Amino acid sequence: MLGLMQEHPLLVSSILRHAARHHQGAKIVSVDAEGAITRDSWPRLEHGAKRLAQALIRLGVRPGDRVATMSWNSRAHLEVYYAVSGMGAVLHTVNPRLFADQIAYILEDAADTVVFVDPSVLPALMAVAERLPKSLRAVVLMGPAPNTALPVPVLDQEALIAAESGDYEWPQLDERSASSLCYTSGTTGMPKGVLYSHRSTVLHAMSAIQADVFALSARDVAMPVVPMFHVNAWSIPYASAMAGSSLVLPGPRLDPASLFRLFEEEGITFSAGVPTIWTLLLQWLRADPARKFSIPPRLVVGGTALPVAITTGFLREYGISILHAWGMTELSPLGSLNSRKAEHADWDEARWLAYSRKQGRPPFGVDFRVLDNGGKPIARDEVAFGELEVQGHWVAGSYFNHPNDPAFNADGWFRTGDVVTLDAPGVIEIVDRAKDVIKSGGEWISSITLENLALAHPDVALAAAIGVHHAKWDERPLLLVVRKPGTEPTPESILAVLDGKVAKWWMPDRVEFVETLPMTATGKLWKAELKRQFKNYSLEG
Amino acid sequence: MLGLMQEHPLLVSSILRHAARHHQGAKIVSVDAEGAITRDSWPRLEHGAKRLAQALIRLGVRPGDRVATMSWNSRAHLEVYYAVSGMGAVLHTVNPRLFADQIAYILEDAADTVVFVDPSVLPALMAVAERLPKSLRAVVLMGPAPNTALPVPVLDQEALIAAESGDYEWPQLDERSASSLCYTSGTTGMPKGVLYSHRSTVLHAMSAIQADVFALSARDVAMPVVPMFHVNAWSIPYASAMAGSSLVLPGPRLDPASLFRLFEEEGITFSAGVPTIWTLLLQWLRADPARKFSIPPRLVVGGTALPVAITTGFLREYGISILHAWGMTELSPLGSLNSRKAEHADWDEARWLAYSRKQGRPPFGVDFRVLDNGGKPIARDEVAFGELEVQGHWVAGSYFNHPNDPAFNADGWFRTGDVVTLDAPGVIEIVDRAKDVIKSGGEWISSITLENLALAHPDVALAAAIGVHHAKWDERPLLLVVRKPGTEPTPESILAVLDGKVAKWWMPDRVEFVETLPMTATGKLWKAELKRQFKNYSLEG
Repeated sequence: MLGLMQEHPLLVSSILRHAARHHQGAKIVSVDAEGAITRDSWPRLEHGAKRLAQALIRLGVRPGDRVATMSWNSRAHLEVYYAVSGMGAVLHTVNPRLFADQIAYILEDAADTVVFVDPSVLPALMAVAERLPKSLRAVVLMGPAPNTALPVPVLDQEALIAAESGDYEWPQLDERSASSLCYTSGTTGMPKGVLYSHRSTVLHAMSAIQADVFALSARDVAMPVVPMFHVNAWSIPYASAMAGSSLVLPGPRLDPASLFRLFEEEGITFSAGVPTIWTLLLQWLRADPARKFSIPPRLVVGGTALPVAITTGFLREYGISILHAWGMTELSPLGSLNSRKAEHADWDEARWLAYSRKQGRPPFGVDFRVLDNGGKPIARDEVAFGELEVQGHWVAGSYFNHPNDPAFNADGWFRTGDVVTLDAPGVIEIVDRAKDVIKSGGEWISSITLENLALAHPDVALAAAIGVHHAKWDERPLLLVVRKPGTEPTPESILAVLDGKVAKWWMPDRVEFVETLPMTATGKLWKAELKRQFKNYSLEG
Repeated sequence: MLGLMQEHPLLVSSILRHAARHHQGAKIVSVDAEGAITRDSWPRLEHGAKRLAQALIRLGVRPGDRVATMSWNSRAHLEVYYAVSGMGAVLHTVNPRLFADQIAYILEDAADTVVFVDPSVLPALMAVAERLPKSLRAVVLMGPAPNTALPVPVLDQEALIAAESGDYEWPQLDERSASSLCYTSGTTGMPKGVLYSHRSTVLHAMSAIQADVFALSARDVAMPVVPMFHVNAWSIPYASAMAGSSLVLPGPRLDPASLFRLFEEEGITFSAGVPTIWTLLLQWLRADPARKFSIPPRLVVGGTALPVAITTGFLREYGISILHAWGMTELSPLGSLNSRKAEHADWDEARWLAYSRKQGRPPFGVDFRVLDNGGKPIARDEVAFGELEVQGHWVAGSYFNHPNDPAFNADGWFRTGDVVTLDAPGVIEIVDRAKDVIKSGGEWISSITLENLALAHPDVALAAAIGVHHAKWDERPLLLVVRKPGTEPTPESILAVLDGKVAKWWMPDRVEFVETLPMTATGKLWKAELKRQFKNYSLEG
């Protein structure tokens, strides 16, 4: 027997409509590449998004068509977000910092019909001008730019909008319709697209504003430092509208001084970004005792682990709590958060800070499974580890154009590629990427554990542990180290730091000093490239 | 084009599973009719619910069958909640305080197959023993009780559970399946059933734990004082599990001393109830200066408006903020909340307290429409009023067994029967029930406004304004007053309190003193009965 409740689809457009109707007082602040600030509101943004939707329809964009953006966090980008998904087309956010080959590949793979581009990243588009997909109908400039010659018409977002009335009703779509598309950063092989639905996007945002997630409210001023081209800026463009928060979009200037000015002048209460952002901000704050927050904001960190020293510094010196979150493009991105529970109430600060390095527990809507090599659930003992598998309302079921990727199990679980431990309450801690785990004699060694221990040596600037071929053990660990300038540590002194902290058989067979380590476009250690470079390395040599 | 996300139904069972997996440390505290306390946890509750589901299947209960409860807020009731909905049957919560005729009617209308009954309310069931529905297979006692003779087998919840293994997987149901059924209190006519779906229940709970709604977290200890037979206790049995909050179920003893003891001994941080509960608690607290909360809890009030004097007393004397919510059985029940926004940050306390009397704005997921007599949206000026209509993911689409009720508009809006004003930001204030508005010369007079003004007279204990027949104006207001003991106010002195505060033509034509005013089973003024009593009242007499 079915219930007798009203049936309405969960649609991205209904988020914006809610904000426009009930949160006219919230502000949308946008900073451009020169630092100039414009101010807007949710009702005006909805009016602009409706006019842009009309313009896209006039350009021949149809429901299901992909529309790309190459832009920073800005009001113009937000307008494209809601216009494209709202009208039933698919918002494809492209990271403008990707290599030209990758950009050319994903525009082609997505078969984009229109590309919106911020003038400051026009060179990234011009670099692939000869390789634009056949599907492309137009390029739209998101601000004033010099004359640009491309094989398709080059239009202007403001001019497109000015020609339309805004007299437009958002269509009632199937909630399973695709709303947006984001490609994984792809440390191995070419990027793969994750095709979000309206339903997954709305459910994810409903989770994001819950008290133990981002806790966004109509009292908040939220600033996503995480880019809008990176997994929908962790839902903040949606979550803020849903909660009626004000939204500050900081543009491309993400240096600590620019961010701090926004925190103070705009009264930001909530922000989210990757570890580098918060680490640089802490260093900058410490450089001048006058740099204090009027109101300590809530900060969320994700992407990779934030060193406990940074979390500790923010809390002890600035009264700022940093919430550790974990996610992936395939998870929209929120997979887990380490928010405090009642049972931690009597923990002292040091104990909590040490615990807060863990990636946390899933919010309602996401399920975890961690199996060992034999397919059995691992012990919840903080020692046993296995690959994390995920199910949930905002978890991908397959990749766009890649229906049979092995990351998606036959029994409906997504294999994250992250290797984790569990503690008794089921909180995860990532100990490695599955492909970076060093497989020695059938057992696993965590490369990240070795790297973190090596970083404790005072002369080590960067460290990477990789598995290299070994005749007997299949793989053995090699530790690659970038020295701090002016220092000359010995391999022995580095291994001494690890000694006693890991099992004997985890100890690296060799330490090699290198000048640099390769990084991906999103700032992560590029292990695949490292392993390629050291493919023929011989431990016998 | 459809998105490529995983497809999982939104199911009530998934809420309990989440709590059992990730919130083992939260407690479930249950108080019985004698004040004895039992303690449990989410994992053990899930195990019990699974065993009870197995027992129900053994009793022949099938998916879609209705299973009734007549009980207070207790662990046993919570177990039935999750067992029944989880297995795919429909949880039908019956208010044991209803009149026997109403109980007999709704058991028959719902065609219940099993009734779970708390021993303390067995007399309410025995009163309809001769009129039990033919569909009934068994009565299950939720605790120890004397031998009971009924025309169907009388079983025991603990014994049923003891016979099962708990080796049971919650079924994957269609998320639109019915999960529970609750009858409106019915101030006019017989009660009507609202048939909730798994989808509506889960979305409603996802909203309830958002920061601007109940903000429940894993740091909270939540106590629903609102009964579990009344619109699923405003979702708290679901929302607490979803957020991993601890849950305190206070049983039938809701006097201020019993509640205060629970607040203090169990560390309750959040509670929700009707105005009477909080008014009595405030009076009791004030009677002894030693009565102070160790930690001021967050309180939610709904059902009818809470006088500003009570809100003010709690805030100024006890540091407790009361959040004003509005809802209906047909809305699962949450329709609006008046949580503070950034734009109220610089309001002084008195201004905010006065504003907090309003019922608020809808959370994301609910839409409002207020039309005047001519079908046009009313002005957002706090003066114009019209009937509130509602749409949303947890709003009823029709009544159970009553497919064509006029409360459901042909264009898909539910007519709430509440008459409201709107202010500029769209916040509603209820000024009357549509059927209680006094229609004088084609214009509307708010009966509630007249009543609230009359209550400002020091000698008035209760007041009711109703429309009585008038030859020229169709209806004119009659004010009925219950005097405080030992006082003798005159009609003139009462009208003098209203004078200048309402339009001349709103002034009651007559004041009549009465000994009592009729109340409904849920403690509301029973205007329908009053109007019946005064049907032939003559203003000319």
